[in-house]
Amino acid sequence: MYIVNREFSIDWGDCDPAGIVFYPRYFCMFDVSTAFIFNSALKISKYELLNKFNIIGFPMVDTGARFHYPSRFGDIVNIETKIDRFGRSSFDVSHKLWRDGVLAIEAYEKRVWAARDEENPEKIRGVPIPEIVIDALSIKNKDVRNEV
Amino acid sequence: MYIVNREFSIDWGDCDPAGIVFYPRYFCMFDVSTAFIFNSALKISKYELLNKFNIIGFPMVDTGARFHYPSRFGDIVNIETKIDRFGRSSFDVSHKLWRDGVLAIEAYEKRVWAARDEENPEKIRGVPIPEIVIDALSIKNKDVRNEV
Amino acid sequence: MYIVNREFSIDWGDCDPAGIVFYPRYFCMFDVSTAFIFNSALKISKYELLNKFNIIGFPMVDTGARFHYPSRFGDIVNIETKIDRFGRSSFDVSHKLWRDGVLAIEAYEKRVWAARDEENPEKIRGVPIPEIVIDALSIKNKDVRNEV
Amino acid sequence: MYIVNREFSIDWGDCDPAGIVFYPRYFCMFDVSTAFIFNSALKISKYELLNKFNIIGFPMVDTGARFHYPSRFGDIVNIETKIDRFGRSSFDVSHKLWRDGVLAIEAYEKRVWAARDEENPEKIRGVPIPEIVIDALSIKNKDVRNEV
Repeated sequence: MYIVNREFSIDWGDCDPAGIVFYPRYFCMFDVSTAFIFNSALKISKYELLNKFNIIGFPMVDTGARFHYPSRFGDIVNIETKIDRFGRSSFDVSHKLWRDGVLAIEAYEKRVWAARDEENPEKIRGVPIPEIVIDALSIKNKDVRNEV
Repeated sequence: MYIVNREFSIDWGDCDPAGIVFYPRYFCMFDVSTAFIFNSALKISKYELLNKFNIIGFPMVDTGARFHYPSRFGDIVNIETKIDRFGRSSFDVSHKLWRDGVLAIEAYEKRVWAARDEENPEKIRGVPIPEIVIDALSIKNKDVRNEV
Repeated sequence: MYIVNREFSIDWGDCDPAGIVFYPRYFCMFDVSTAFIFNSALKISKYELLNKFNIIGFPMVDTGARFHYPSRFGDIVNIETKIDRFGRSSFDVSHKLWRDGVLAIEAYEKRVWAARDEENPEKIRGVPIPEIVIDALSIKNKDVRNEV
Repeated sequence: MYIVNREFSIDWGDCDPAGIVFYPRYFCMFDVSTAFIFNSALKISKYELLNKFNIIGFPMVDTGARFHYPSRFGDIVNIETKIDRFGRSSFDVSHKLWRDGVLAIEAYEKRVWAARDEENPEKIRGVPIPEIVIDALSIKNKDVRNEV
């Protein structure tokens, strides 16, 4: 499966009065990594991806994370992300966050490839994930690094 | 077990370009509810609680959420929170977020009652949860409402 | 002019490792207050307001804040908000954040009443603010309190 | 004066239902840039800087921004940051955010080099900015790029 890595430093504003990352911020970081794996495999930004495939995004259905070690501002961390499974309109993602060679967090996601309901634009519903997307993400390609 | 409810409206800034809540924001909301259950039972703010019990907070060990229905800005939601279990230095919390009488999200948390390590203040470690805290949270008391 | 007040407590997740509010969070709080003054005067949520007047929001053109005193988690603060001026498609807002009777922050905003450009939906442009909106916000009405 | 540039892409979670950056998020980005200029000139992380100089951070006293053009998720932006003035315990920062060669935002900051009051640790007060810091930031050094 396709795997991407993003390396970045923890910011002051990510942290709480205990001096460590406020855990909801990790979910923001994982969300960036999930967008990044699509950007990287399809060579387009998330904005272009939504337009191209006429979807409104990939809303979260189920997510969780186990926090083994805290990180604090100034720490350099690395998130390794892969897609574990493609269903018809849903897909499973896993993230591992490493700090100093130590596995600090493990997270999973189930998301849905979603479009506005044409009959009721207030509703969002899952639509089939295009083959071209699944194919691009199924190529073995380790060590794709974040450039931007 | 002690149960609290907080009712509030979803803000514009909680939502993403799909017009629905950006899911990491829900974890911020749940974090407020977990603080609120302690505030409510102990009649003190989180700031006072940390000082009184000489802890740095209750960092997250394990959390997850299942998102059944999205919410958007302007929606009024209600989070019902309870502590499912007290261990020696960890505790389990569950949250249910309701919108218009529908159960929209279910979430769980395992947190640790944590202090700075006296020998190495850079380290954080679990410490025993005081009996007075466990007792206060064990009183049956439904329908405590958010006042502030 | 119409004035609204919102009273709420500062949350743990609003604060940084110095233990005080991370200042970008204040701008989130002011954004909620600006939405609230419209909700309050027009008796509709921001979601309904955007639909009713066919706008995409009121993007910020110019904002600033002077921080006289910090606040920390557990503090109860009060934001007093008023609209200082309505132009054709822009308007000026001012916020005062009080803590314990002390004026802690003063902020101003210039925003634009904005719609999608019909010829180029990727563009956003200012449109005239409806008279009904200006009228509703021009009624003298002190001490409107946040209910949700 | 010392100038740094950070180039990065706007994330989905930075944006609001209008599809453009929710403006408080820009202040988070500017805060990262202000930390980065110190990191870059002093060759230490913000965490190390706080420890080395025994301060709790550089809280904001006064900030503002003018938003000329919006940005949206997927856009690549560049923030150019410089310190305009060092006072005894305060300093002024300016940021320019560029997108596609266009100046999209101009922002200013006045911050204070702050420590805990030794007699009352609940209080924060300005302390003199060390000469070594002023000297390091006064070297001409254009085009320092963000590496992490």
